[in-house]
Amino acid sequence: MTAAPAGQPFRQVALIGVGLIGSSMALAMRRFGLAERVVGCARSAETRAKALELGLCDEMFEDPAAAVSECDLVVLATPVGAYAAVAEAMQRSLAAGAIVTDVGSVKQAAIRDVGPFVPEGVHFVPGHPIAGTEQSGPEAGFAELFEQRYCLLTPPPGTDAEAVERVAWLWRSMGSTVDVLEPGHHDQVLAITSHLPHLIAYTIVHTAMGLEESTKQEAIKYSAGGFRDFTRIAASDPVMWRDVFLNNRESVLEMLQRFSEDLTALQRAIRWGEGEVLEDLFSRTREARRGVIEQHQAGSFDPREPKT
Amino acid sequence: MTAAPAGQPFRQVALIGVGLIGSSMALAMRRFGLAERVVGCARSAETRAKALELGLCDEMFEDPAAAVSECDLVVLATPVGAYAAVAEAMQRSLAAGAIVTDVGSVKQAAIRDVGPFVPEGVHFVPGHPIAGTEQSGPEAGFAELFEQRYCLLTPPPGTDAEAVERVAWLWRSMGSTVDVLEPGHHDQVLAITSHLPHLIAYTIVHTAMGLEESTKQEAIKYSAGGFRDFTRIAASDPVMWRDVFLNNRESVLEMLQRFSEDLTALQRAIRWGEGEVLEDLFSRTREARRGVIEQHQAGSFDPREPKT
Ligand SMILES: NC(=O)c1ccc[n+]([C@@H]2O[C@H](COP(=O)([O-])OP(=O)(O)OC[C@H]3O[C@@H](n4cnc5c(N)ncnc54)[C@H](OP(=O)(O)O)[C@@H]3O)[C@@H](O)[C@H]2O)c1
Ligand SMILES: NC(=O)c1ccc[n+]([C@@H]2O[C@H](COP(=O)([O-])OP(=O)(O)OC[C@H]3O[C@@H](n4cnc5c(N)ncnc54)[C@H](OP(=O)(O)O)[C@@H]3O)[C@@H](O)[C@H]2O)c1
Repeated sequence: MTAAPAGQPFRQVALIGVGLIGSSMALAMRRFGLAERVVGCARSAETRAKALELGLCDEMFEDPAAAVSECDLVVLATPVGAYAAVAEAMQRSLAAGAIVTDVGSVKQAAIRDVGPFVPEGVHFVPGHPIAGTEQSGPEAGFAELFEQRYCLLTPPPGTDAEAVERVAWLWRSMGSTVDVLEPGHHDQVLAITSHLPHLIAYTIVHTAMGLEESTKQEAIKYSAGGFRDFTRIAASDPVMWRDVFLNNRESVLEMLQRFSEDLTALQRAIRWGEGEVLEDLFSRTREARRGVIEQHQAGSFDPREPKT
Repeated sequence: MTAAPAGQPFRQVALIGVGLIGSSMALAMRRFGLAERVVGCARSAETRAKALELGLCDEMFEDPAAAVSECDLVVLATPVGAYAAVAEAMQRSLAAGAIVTDVGSVKQAAIRDVGPFVPEGVHFVPGHPIAGTEQSGPEAGFAELFEQRYCLLTPPPGTDAEAVERVAWLWRSMGSTVDVLEPGHHDQVLAITSHLPHLIAYTIVHTAMGLEESTKQEAIKYSAGGFRDFTRIAASDPVMWRDVFLNNRESVLEMLQRFSEDLTALQRAIRWGEGEVLEDLFSRTREARRGVIEQHQAGSFDPREPKT
């Protein structure tokens, strides 16, 4: 099988994993006519049934090898810890000329785990859409998830340029801006912008949940003062995040070290009542928010409850 | 002057400070007919002009003493660090029978700083609406800010019960649920639900802004993976937050200590690749989110950009 030509829809796409990201891709690919056929693969019968019921996929498979055999594009959209097993399972079924890509939140580990199983004549283009929510599963997806968001591609040296361009075209067609990054650099940047924020949010919610029962209940009742935002982030999928931390250990530990040093400095300023140090630091962080808003990456938070 | 009877609008309310909270109260009091007249006090001519232009207040004063003299309710809505000076300034002008309340984020310090200046026959009812945004200034307010939110009152022993009930009535009339807490307990609960989250958000944004220039720019571009939520929280008013940390030092340092211990444990689990420890902890924090949603304190976050 040869891939469909540039700018043409893929003939058949396999989504390995149909959770938040996989289902959002299915919806966006259908909306924008980017694939003639979309098939999927999930472990559980429940997810497979749901994906069919929601019209996300034309056909669902339990076995990755069966899912990919007729496809010109395969998208790995499982937690990163499942990559090696999935890649090994589908290895012999991949069609010549097919492109394999992924959406995993860490990229060096993706290359390490998938690379060895990619046969000659198949192209692996690692990718990561910087878009998400705290929801997971096939019902969580929506077609606009990738609009106005960045998608990072991290092809190792020597990756087929045409394959990279095909994957870039897919993401652009779903509304994203595509940037190419070196995999190690990706993992470092994401350690500070995504992995550490999640780690911290999980920790602070954990700390609150460790307080005595009555205080813990009050923490939830009176959460509108800031805590609620952390509970949202800390409601993200436990397996996905376990795999992120296990697979981006070095960068996460490095950023955590810097963070801890900065926190210690602030702690000292509080202990010694150094008002100017606090005010000065709190003033400088506003710049970052202006940047996020200017870059249209802020999303929209409404402090009011959703109207029911 | 005697206060208006229970369930009746206040005759004249003075808002000392017309920022996010003061302006939201002005709008809510007007919408629900809770005050016959609202006057305000702010340091800057700019804020005073703005408050009149927006119709928040009927009259604006520079001098707190002038603002409060005809009022049956005075609301302190400046940063907590200004309380002692403001309370001293208005001390001699307070009308007999008037109620003084406040909205400050720390309550033991509010009682310490305001209490000594409250004359015989005037009632001080410390309060704190658990509602806010990262915005500040007179233009940031909106009448619905307090709807479906808690307002905590922390009257010291011996506070006039009728005065407490009048203030509770005001908050209920603006849409809040009123709970009464012991001031020290308030400061502890808020240390974990609001003060520590803000401190952590400021720190992580600060850490990212300390990275080399190109990485820093990427952190902003690729902020949709979690960082953007922290930039929002870290865009809060620097003076307000300086005053919170200077005035709730002990509780904040205690919660920070617990948080640091929990973070160290997670750091160790990452370093040693203890997947079950991570997954288990990440699973248990979801319970908190369910609680926040069930209690209708979640607000609404839409990952998409606001439509322009
Ligand atoms: N969530 C985000 O915000 C976000 C953002 C960017 C990138 N990512 C990355 O996207 C990937 C998917 O995340 P998600 O949020 O979409 O996850 P999700 O909603 O939890 O869905 C995961 C999917 O993968 C399947 N799966 C899990 N383990 C598997 C295995 N061992 N073999 C085969 N299939 C397996 C699941 O099937 P069952 O339902 O049958 O178990 C499910 O369909 C992850 O690598 C994550 O790092 C996530
Ligand atoms: N923001 C929140 O989310 C939130 C939530 C709950 C409680 N609170 C508490 O509410 C209070 C006000 O917060 P905010 O967010 O409304 O603040 P803000 O928007 O920054 O407004 C502060 C107001 O106080 C005035 N002010 C400042 N220093 C003063 C001084 N020394 N003397 C007289 N007036 C002074 C300011 O006048 P100028 O404009 O003229 O300087 C301004 O009108 C704080 O105690 C805070 O802890 C805040």
